[in-house]
Amino acid sequence: MSADSHAEITITAFESSPDRGRGLARDMPVRWALEEAGRPYAVRLVSFETMKQPAHCALQPFAQIPTFEEGDLALFESGAIVFHIAERYTGLLPTDANARARAIAWMFAALNTVEPPIANRVIAMFVEGDKSWAEERLAIVDQRIRDRLGDLSARLGDADWLDGAFSAGDLLMVSVIRRLSASGLLDEYPNLTAYVARGEARPAFQRAFAAQLAVFTASTEQSGGKG
Amino acid sequence: MSADSHAEITITAFESSPDRGRGLARDMPVRWALEEAGRPYAVRLVSFETMKQPAHCALQPFAQIPTFEEGDLALFESGAIVFHIAERYTGLLPTDANARARAIAWMFAALNTVEPPIANRVIAMFVEGDKSWAEERLAIVDQRIRDRLGDLSARLGDADWLDGAFSAGDLLMVSVIRRLSASGLLDEYPNLTAYVARGEARPAFQRAFAAQLAVFTASTEQSGGKG
Repeated sequence: MSADSHAEITITAFESSPDRGRGLARDMPVRWALEEAGRPYAVRLVSFETMKQPAHCALQPFAQIPTFEEGDLALFESGAIVFHIAERYTGLLPTDANARARAIAWMFAALNTVEPPIANRVIAMFVEGDKSWAEERLAIVDQRIRDRLGDLSARLGDADWLDGAFSAGDLLMVSVIRRLSASGLLDEYPNLTAYVARGEARPAFQRAFAAQLAVFTASTEQSGGKG
Repeated sequence: MSADSHAEITITAFESSPDRGRGLARDMPVRWALEEAGRPYAVRLVSFETMKQPAHCALQPFAQIPTFEEGDLALFESGAIVFHIAERYTGLLPTDANARARAIAWMFAALNTVEPPIANRVIAMFVEGDKSWAEERLAIVDQRIRDRLGDLSARLGDADWLDGAFSAGDLLMVSVIRRLSASGLLDEYPNLTAYVARGEARPAFQRAFAAQLAVFTASTEQSGGKG
């Protein structure tokens, strides 16, 4: 499975993504960044079993996806891979030094301030969903998410992007908060809903989304529609 | 309160840190990075009330510390500030392009893969500590932490640092996992305990730690030892 078998860049992605093609796995921001940068890439699909094998763990110490390989460079961690792409190619970071530093601040804010409560929602719902206290805890987690979204909404205001032109900071922030689309939480913040929609409308996002969806569709066809 | 009132760099920190001077607040990695880079800095202390005011939120949209100001650049998010310092001065990132990209990968891994379960331990113990399910949930969270620490321990092996020389990746990783020092969890991984000790033994860490401790000591003296 590859987007371009002659590509110099190879990433890894789930053979069968648990999100069923909704583009919520962490290969999605990497695909999106590569599309924004106009770089072709190949994809090596890994199963949950393959991910735990030494060959994959040599690339990804925490047995996760995605990884990034290009020549003699091997990288892991989606934020770092997006940053590497943003630094190496044009279109994802401003050239002005201060604006660039601020865009990078939004990258870290997306992953280290906004994402943690959102990731905890997945844990509260699915990993701990069978606990007697699941419902009570989900309400607590949702309030923490609202705290972050409220601050983010206030800062964004009626701007299109977080700080001037679209940047890798927006790419990661949209990637993080669109995980809430099915929850209804985003609906409380119309400017954030519009922000996510602007991100998803970008041609590069669309191409990345279609590519990851094609993997899921192929995996369900192979398993007779039961994937 | 300032480490150097003529410094061009100003950061913010808690007026009265909830960790009581143990250097676990997020100004600590920024102080440490500035010390590694040999840059003087001033500190503006903020209270929990001040942090919520518009003046601070203009600098930090999520009403947190630290912030970083230098000339006409204002930054927030500790990971981004450490990266900015690492990029601008020598000693925190390798010059070889591939080694630099890998060090940055460890920065993101520290903050986006290793820290989330550790931050959840604080939530489970202190924020949700009064819940009937607190103990049951803490055991679940601790297992997730062990999963990450096990992977990290395996990757580190008997090396001094994660990838060659000490880097901003190690600075953030040590900052993140030393938060577990009081928990006993780190003791299960002797090479990680030694890794944290190596980080804490660096003169730059020692200076940063002393500076943040001095803030706490002063705050308790001002409040008659009850701070």
